[in-house]
Amino acid sequence: MQQDHYRIGLIGNGSWATAIAKILSKNIETINWWVKDEFVKENLIRTKHNPTYLTDVEFNPDQFNISTDINEVVFNSDIIFFVVPSIFVEKCLEPLNVGFRDKIVITSIKGIIPEHYQTVNDFLKKHHNLSDDNLAVVSGPCHAEEVALERLSYLTVAHQDTAIAETIANCLRCDFIQVKTTHDVTGTEYGAILKNIFAIAAGIAHGLGYGDNFHAVLMSNAIREMERVLDVVDPLDRNINESAYLGDLLVTGYSFFSRNRMFGNMIGKGYTVKSAILEMNMVAEGYYATKGVYELKDQYRVRIPIIAAVYKILYLKKNPKKVMDKLTKKLD
Amino acid sequence: MQQDHYRIGLIGNGSWATAIAKILSKNIETINWWVKDEFVKENLIRTKHNPTYLTDVEFNPDQFNISTDINEVVFNSDIIFFVVPSIFVEKCLEPLNVGFRDKIVITSIKGIIPEHYQTVNDFLKKHHNLSDDNLAVVSGPCHAEEVALERLSYLTVAHQDTAIAETIANCLRCDFIQVKTTHDVTGTEYGAILKNIFAIAAGIAHGLGYGDNFHAVLMSNAIREMERVLDVVDPLDRNINESAYLGDLLVTGYSFFSRNRMFGNMIGKGYTVKSAILEMNMVAEGYYATKGVYELKDQYRVRIPIIAAVYKILYLKKNPKKVMDKLTKKLD
Repeated sequence: MQQDHYRIGLIGNGSWATAIAKILSKNIETINWWVKDEFVKENLIRTKHNPTYLTDVEFNPDQFNISTDINEVVFNSDIIFFVVPSIFVEKCLEPLNVGFRDKIVITSIKGIIPEHYQTVNDFLKKHHNLSDDNLAVVSGPCHAEEVALERLSYLTVAHQDTAIAETIANCLRCDFIQVKTTHDVTGTEYGAILKNIFAIAAGIAHGLGYGDNFHAVLMSNAIREMERVLDVVDPLDRNINESAYLGDLLVTGYSFFSRNRMFGNMIGKGYTVKSAILEMNMVAEGYYATKGVYELKDQYRVRIPIIAAVYKILYLKKNPKKVMDKLTKKLD
Repeated sequence: MQQDHYRIGLIGNGSWATAIAKILSKNIETINWWVKDEFVKENLIRTKHNPTYLTDVEFNPDQFNISTDINEVVFNSDIIFFVVPSIFVEKCLEPLNVGFRDKIVITSIKGIIPEHYQTVNDFLKKHHNLSDDNLAVVSGPCHAEEVALERLSYLTVAHQDTAIAETIANCLRCDFIQVKTTHDVTGTEYGAILKNIFAIAAGIAHGLGYGDNFHAVLMSNAIREMERVLDVVDPLDRNINESAYLGDLLVTGYSFFSRNRMFGNMIGKGYTVKSAILEMNMVAEGYYATKGVYELKDQYRVRIPIIAAVYKILYLKKNPKKVMDKLTKKLD
């Protein structure tokens, strides 16, 4: 299988979607690119830049069929990268009347669909007739900003069929992107969701004045907590220390630019959830993930002290200092 | 067993030894403290501060029998924390004529003895008649500077006998220090040594301009490399993601204050090894560790691409850019 036999599509125009567009443009002759409105489309065509995200990246408009019509993009593509924030997934797919059948959809979203409290893949299966056969996941560790700078980054493509995973990987491989493949679709998607909750915990701890020593202990406990959850969500023989799990946790948990960590930091410093969301002018993905994952705890029946602590702070409005203090006694 | 039946000693006056002194002073009434010279001794007694390291920490001189005579300190102590840089271990023990028999020696050194290329515990066994019965290890993740600030930190005490490990742990537990115990003496000592090599690698990568995405991948590969090495050095059923291993790697690998990372950073930026050592006015522990560990590679027979890359740069004077570029192809 070679990726040049396939027509490639991309849905999304946020920073991560823009990074994927840049990566794809290294390999793919023509990319069908859905963006959310005429302003973005017109800017990409006229100025060659996304007006809002990764604004330094220059695109060759001849390489893209840019459209605000999702049906057009889906209809004309065989392999579709689906990269919108989880909060916009439903709205973005609302006008869709072209089916996803016979297409490969690769999600790279790292969040839970609000209201439904489902992962994006679960949502697509339930509401858009997708199956394991045509769902893949792409995960980091990967800040979009470093892709813009062409700094060496590693991605993992997960699909149950190795040949399809390799086809997708070949769309992405270039001089600054290395890609490995895995069968662990669910674990890769879930790990990317969980790491945002742990990044919120790290932010809360930082906001409360905990230092680097504690942060390292928190991350060491977080990866063990992630392993316990993944082992019940989809028990596979995985090495949790691979880049898609541990690497992804670290790049987010140690980044001061992570919105999830920033959100946690504000909570730790005394902001209410409402005021932190207002101040940030957005909702951190981990906020929904916390509720979505915590509410499944009775199904999991594994120890999730960090997730539970974040839940208590964000949703039960418990005092962050007291909750974190109790949490520290449960870590080792 | 209770620690108050034992006479406690401490050997060393660097920053980590000074942090240990502060921690011990929270629990132990009288501590026999060996320091290297009269200047340090006189300052501790007169000004209540170590004149060179963690200078903000105030000690109560009445709580310490401060001495520059190692025989006096060893003779008068049953449990001895041995905390000097690996490069000074031999010299520090040269005047010793009191034996370590019937004493517990806890090393917290994180380095290889230069010339001998042995771990400190191996050196003590071979040259000072210590055995597994009376050798323990204390490890972080723990920056001494955060101990000075009484920021919550977690230590691990390793001894083959749980009761002895608990006795040692109880010397250290206080309101800002949590301690767990383990039987994995060799793994804990080795992990602390290896992490310095990985911190040098992280520094080299940073100096060469690699970003956060790559750093996360490097750390994710480093912990797997550490696990492979520990599994052959002492095959035990350990969880490599516990704080003593992964936490310790992270606190060093992500710290801009780590001397090992700083050393690597200078190499990455083009300094020669010699000029980096001169500029830093000291040798990073990981420098010796790299040679010590690399030369055992034929015994290990496991993949150690990161350690090998650091060795090639530091000891074979290979071009850092080329070596790191090759290394990136071996990581995933």
